[in-house]
Amino acid sequence: MTTIARHRLELADGRSSDILIGAGLAGQAASYESLDARRVLMVCDEELVASHGQLVRQALAGAVVETVAVAGREASKNWPEVIRLCDAMAAAGLERADALVAVGGGVITDLAGFAAGIYQRGIACVYVPTTLLAQVDASIGGKTGINLAAGKNLIGVFRQPQIVIADSQTLASLPPRHWSAGMAEVVKHAVLDEKLWQLLGSMLADTNLAQLSPEQIATLVAANVKCKAAIVAADERERGRRALLNLGHTFAHALEAALGYEGISHGEAVACGLLAACRLAAAVGVGEAELFDQVAGRLAAASHPDHPLPQRWPDHDRERLHQAMASDKKRAGHLRFVLPRQIGDVFVSEDAIAREMVDAAIDVLLM
Amino acid sequence: MTTIARHRLELADGRSSDILIGAGLAGQAASYESLDARRVLMVCDEELVASHGQLVRQALAGAVVETVAVAGREASKNWPEVIRLCDAMAAAGLERADALVAVGGGVITDLAGFAAGIYQRGIACVYVPTTLLAQVDASIGGKTGINLAAGKNLIGVFRQPQIVIADSQTLASLPPRHWSAGMAEVVKHAVLDEKLWQLLGSMLADTNLAQLSPEQIATLVAANVKCKAAIVAADERERGRRALLNLGHTFAHALEAALGYEGISHGEAVACGLLAACRLAAAVGVGEAELFDQVAGRLAAASHPDHPLPQRWPDHDRERLHQAMASDKKRAGHLRFVLPRQIGDVFVSEDAIAREMVDAAIDVLLM
Repeated sequence: MTTIARHRLELADGRSSDILIGAGLAGQAASYESLDARRVLMVCDEELVASHGQLVRQALAGAVVETVAVAGREASKNWPEVIRLCDAMAAAGLERADALVAVGGGVITDLAGFAAGIYQRGIACVYVPTTLLAQVDASIGGKTGINLAAGKNLIGVFRQPQIVIADSQTLASLPPRHWSAGMAEVVKHAVLDEKLWQLLGSMLADTNLAQLSPEQIATLVAANVKCKAAIVAADERERGRRALLNLGHTFAHALEAALGYEGISHGEAVACGLLAACRLAAAVGVGEAELFDQVAGRLAAASHPDHPLPQRWPDHDRERLHQAMASDKKRAGHLRFVLPRQIGDVFVSEDAIAREMVDAAIDVLLM
Repeated sequence: MTTIARHRLELADGRSSDILIGAGLAGQAASYESLDARRVLMVCDEELVASHGQLVRQALAGAVVETVAVAGREASKNWPEVIRLCDAMAAAGLERADALVAVGGGVITDLAGFAAGIYQRGIACVYVPTTLLAQVDASIGGKTGINLAAGKNLIGVFRQPQIVIADSQTLASLPPRHWSAGMAEVVKHAVLDEKLWQLLGSMLADTNLAQLSPEQIATLVAANVKCKAAIVAADERERGRRALLNLGHTFAHALEAALGYEGISHGEAVACGLLAACRLAAAVGVGEAELFDQVAGRLAAASHPDHPLPQRWPDHDRERLHQAMASDKKRAGHLRFVLPRQIGDVFVSEDAIAREMVDAAIDVLLM
């Protein structure tokens, strides 16, 4: 077992979240020692019950553990699954001092975190994220939620997990496409944080993602967590600065929605969206012209070699993307874009942006 | 319009809730002026849509208001109603800066407050409580929730409304039984707060509840809100002191559960539970012997003359009450009771209490 980093996310009112990053931590009882639960509901990706789920169960030996398996796909983020988890907590006799432990990717942590956040008005929750995307993004910051027909993540709570255990050994069996999807958010964080941009560049200078050791991956995860956690600590409920984390996401959400969430992953949409945001920033006259090529290069270098990130998603209708953007929940009267000036310098544009400029950026996605 | 009091409930991390108390406030645009919503979903007790609902709509004239009617009975606190309200917010195009306004008793504010607390991870919420119970208790303190088959209020969030408008004119058509039910929580607060005990005594010295003016009722509501808000401000999430507000509630919940929530109202159960708690405190040797008669006298004097509060609920099985207590969500290993020493001096007993003493207190309910 190697612990690479232990990050405490401190929130405004004394709450905090412990984020443990390393190799082999998920199966260690010590990782859960701050938990004071007599009963635990473990919500586990159905494909991981026998592997990581079993390790986590053993590490939780001091508590009575019931397991619920959930399909690790976006469609699981729905009301029936929330109700099923709440009923399972009641059936297992969970009380206020007990806990839910979620083992899986972002779908599982989003869904289970929401259920834990509303059962008895909120019980403790532990996340064991098993995808790179969940380790660097979904499990950090306390956003939980499910989807409605009207939109993704329309229902949820802000609720910080008591512990996040980002164990790079759980990524050993992650498919190449999922590795790349996670790296899209890593590159997004790197655009926000010049130090991370440099680290990413140096780590991948003479090698590729597939060849990094679990310890190197953990180091990369830790740097991402540090970047995101600092932003969340300053603005947990996204009243200001946290919106920076939506860099590329206005375009990404529109692309996903226009495609009916079929065929494209969130990370792939973010990769495309980042490049569209760079183009828009240049068109508006605030972004450096070379930023697009810098980010495109980093996305290529950071991708898993067996399934690189897309940089555009051709053959779609510009008008559909526009409509999808207009119904994005982050709108406020007019479309609100997060724009990069240069690496490490990103801002939220409160001004209305001319339709032609947005069209030009959309065209980057469609080329 | 008379404003009797304006109470700001300040929470630990800078959040606050404005509680306006008076006669005629619900229909005044000024009551809602701190709200910055372009769209509003008004969730209204189905029997009040044409009366108070219409007044509130007019007062919200600056916003686009959609109305959803909900039956004001405990059975409405369920998943299908939550889902219906969330879908209605999405259909009405509510965004993060928009708001939900709940008009009705505690069922409506609990249900609608929960829906507002999870839509887009929480939008602003205004409560216009239209029962005495909701004005002095349910609308204050941010507890929201729905019921599961396994227990009441098992699902919910802590979420403070941005504004509470306790308008005593909305109580004009309240039936006598509901007046008395609200007074049970008033007497409970009075046991916690000696000043309120004295106020209640002096207000009812030469008259009865049915003869108080809306202004006098508002004064009484304001004193209750002050008592409850001070406790909530010190311990929003019930980690300590807030548990005092559960005085009488261990017995009350057991009585309601044993009766299948049929035939007895929450307030009526609280009246019985308060007396059982007084008896238990005396049996354990911590409570003054005369407390029982003092509280019984106050409950009688404070009741609406046309439908006095019950002080016992005969012909039930002691064992069923025990079982119901054991499954109450506030348990922690052993049963936890809130015990009164004397008026103004109440504490949470962390010690296990002998079964015989609990039985003796239960027998008070069953006599």
